[in-house]
Amino acid sequence: MKQVNTVETIGLDTARTLIDAARREAETRETRMNIAVVSHEGHLIAFEKMDGAWLASIDIAIDKAFTAVSLQTETAGLAEATQPGGSLYGLNTTNDGRLVVFGGGIPLMRDGTVVGAIGVSGSSVENDVAVAQAGADAFSPGGRDR
Amino acid sequence: MKQVNTVETIGLDTARTLIDAARREAETRETRMNIAVVSHEGHLIAFEKMDGAWLASIDIAIDKAFTAVSLQTETAGLAEATQPGGSLYGLNTTNDGRLVVFGGGIPLMRDGTVVGAIGVSGSSVENDVAVAQAGADAFSPGGRDR
Amino acid sequence: MKQVNTVETIGLDTARTLIDAARREAETRETRMNIAVVSHEGHLIAFEKMDGAWLASIDIAIDKAFTAVSLQTETAGLAEATQPGGSLYGLNTTNDGRLVVFGGGIPLMRDGTVVGAIGVSGSSVENDVAVAQAGADAFSPGGRDR
Amino acid sequence: MKQVNTVETIGLDTARTLIDAARREAETRETRMNIAVVSHEGHLIAFEKMDGAWLASIDIAIDKAFTAVSLQTETAGLAEATQPGGSLYGLNTTNDGRLVVFGGGIPLMRDGTVVGAIGVSGSSVENDVAVAQAGADAFSPGGRDR
Repeated sequence: MKQVNTVETIGLDTARTLIDAARREAETRETRMNIAVVSHEGHLIAFEKMDGAWLASIDIAIDKAFTAVSLQTETAGLAEATQPGGSLYGLNTTNDGRLVVFGGGIPLMRDGTVVGAIGVSGSSVENDVAVAQAGADAFSPGGRDR
Repeated sequence: MKQVNTVETIGLDTARTLIDAARREAETRETRMNIAVVSHEGHLIAFEKMDGAWLASIDIAIDKAFTAVSLQTETAGLAEATQPGGSLYGLNTTNDGRLVVFGGGIPLMRDGTVVGAIGVSGSSVENDVAVAQAGADAFSPGGRDR
Repeated sequence: MKQVNTVETIGLDTARTLIDAARREAETRETRMNIAVVSHEGHLIAFEKMDGAWLASIDIAIDKAFTAVSLQTETAGLAEATQPGGSLYGLNTTNDGRLVVFGGGIPLMRDGTVVGAIGVSGSSVENDVAVAQAGADAFSPGGRDR
Repeated sequence: MKQVNTVETIGLDTARTLIDAARREAETRETRMNIAVVSHEGHLIAFEKMDGAWLASIDIAIDKAFTAVSLQTETAGLAEATQPGGSLYGLNTTNDGRLVVFGGGIPLMRDGTVVGAIGVSGSSVENDVAVAQAGADAFSPGGRDR
């Protein structure tokens, strides 16, 4: 009887590589970011807070990564559907308030499956997304799912 | 002196039947759902997470069912009143954030009384509602309260 | 570059099989149990509450399973170390109180790795452990890690 | 009029150095640890989870570091006073359960003042303490407060 499923996730080495890439992009943009990487089921693998980064963004970065894996989507994609009148209005108050519905959380994909996520918070959403994308690109260049 | 009231609720056998019906509808729609059934007082009776279903939807499915019994309504019916300017704006942040204000939670009725609920989460709200309805129909075909 | 790790987890089919086995043992013992199965990273896959089972044990069953995967141990093995004077006294108030330090949570092992867990609550700890073990045996007969 | 105070804290570079030192000690001991470093006000600066480390220890490592700065003490020193009959019995249930009362959290001192802390969890308390000490020694060799 088939009793177990094989799944793929990321490890600490990969998480460190992604955080390094994201931090370099943050420095280029002269921003101070909190950067988090989580496993395919949302547990924190690695985290860094750049000196002077916003304190509230510690939680937000971690929760953006959690959101990206737990809904298998970029958090930026949740903004529209959760607006007043949107089909998922109210989503951000579920899951003990851990779901972040603006940009900066990006799932890491491999063969069409989410294997982890990166979350970034500490500046404008535009900067957050760009820094998270720089981290995600270090995993899967150009956003290609290989 | 009459000191106790008789109430009706559902049991595990019923919950399993409803979940099976909902899961078949989910498979037909090629979706991967989290499906929860709760008692008339909102306690979890049975739950199933289809392989690959969104992790955030575990809580959302359970809380949709909780919302349906605890407000004696379909959760889809809460969307309008909880909009900004609506009479129940802010409802979703009460009860430790457990009230879900979009579709997918449906109360199970018998003789005009709520005896339990089913909650489904894992796809579009439209799919969530249809899968929850398939479960509810297994309890009360056609939505008729018998 | 090696970027992903392969891990094994259990799916819904396995979870249902284990819950069925546990419930049969519960019936043999004329107990009414809450039975939960979680993934290798602690997310709920399936749950059943037998009719009349203790309400508090819903959370306890789920959290026993969470504890078994998150500390990679049988919860019964935590009882001694968390007693007053024990090396882990106070453990049960960490993790938002989700760690259960008495018997009834058993990890599911494959090739030396935890791939999920079962948690049972609803009777004496002795019964809880026996029912959880019946579920675990359905995964790995005789407790052998195959 | 003097209106502000100067305080000392640690930054990301220091946190990374301490985590590296702790991780090397963890590898020497063939353990898999969660390692956290927090600022003088208890906010997370950096965190790493070694592959395969206990999931429950993510929170515990972070909270050990939080405890060490927030009570300005090694967490191992809290074990005795929090026993039944002890002067601080019940301490671990305050602060939303974030205070950990067993070893593995060590404050980082400079000129008699706490400037941060390291927290380690993932093995026996003895190993946790030794790995945390290896991290703290990278900040202040031999435990000397310089």
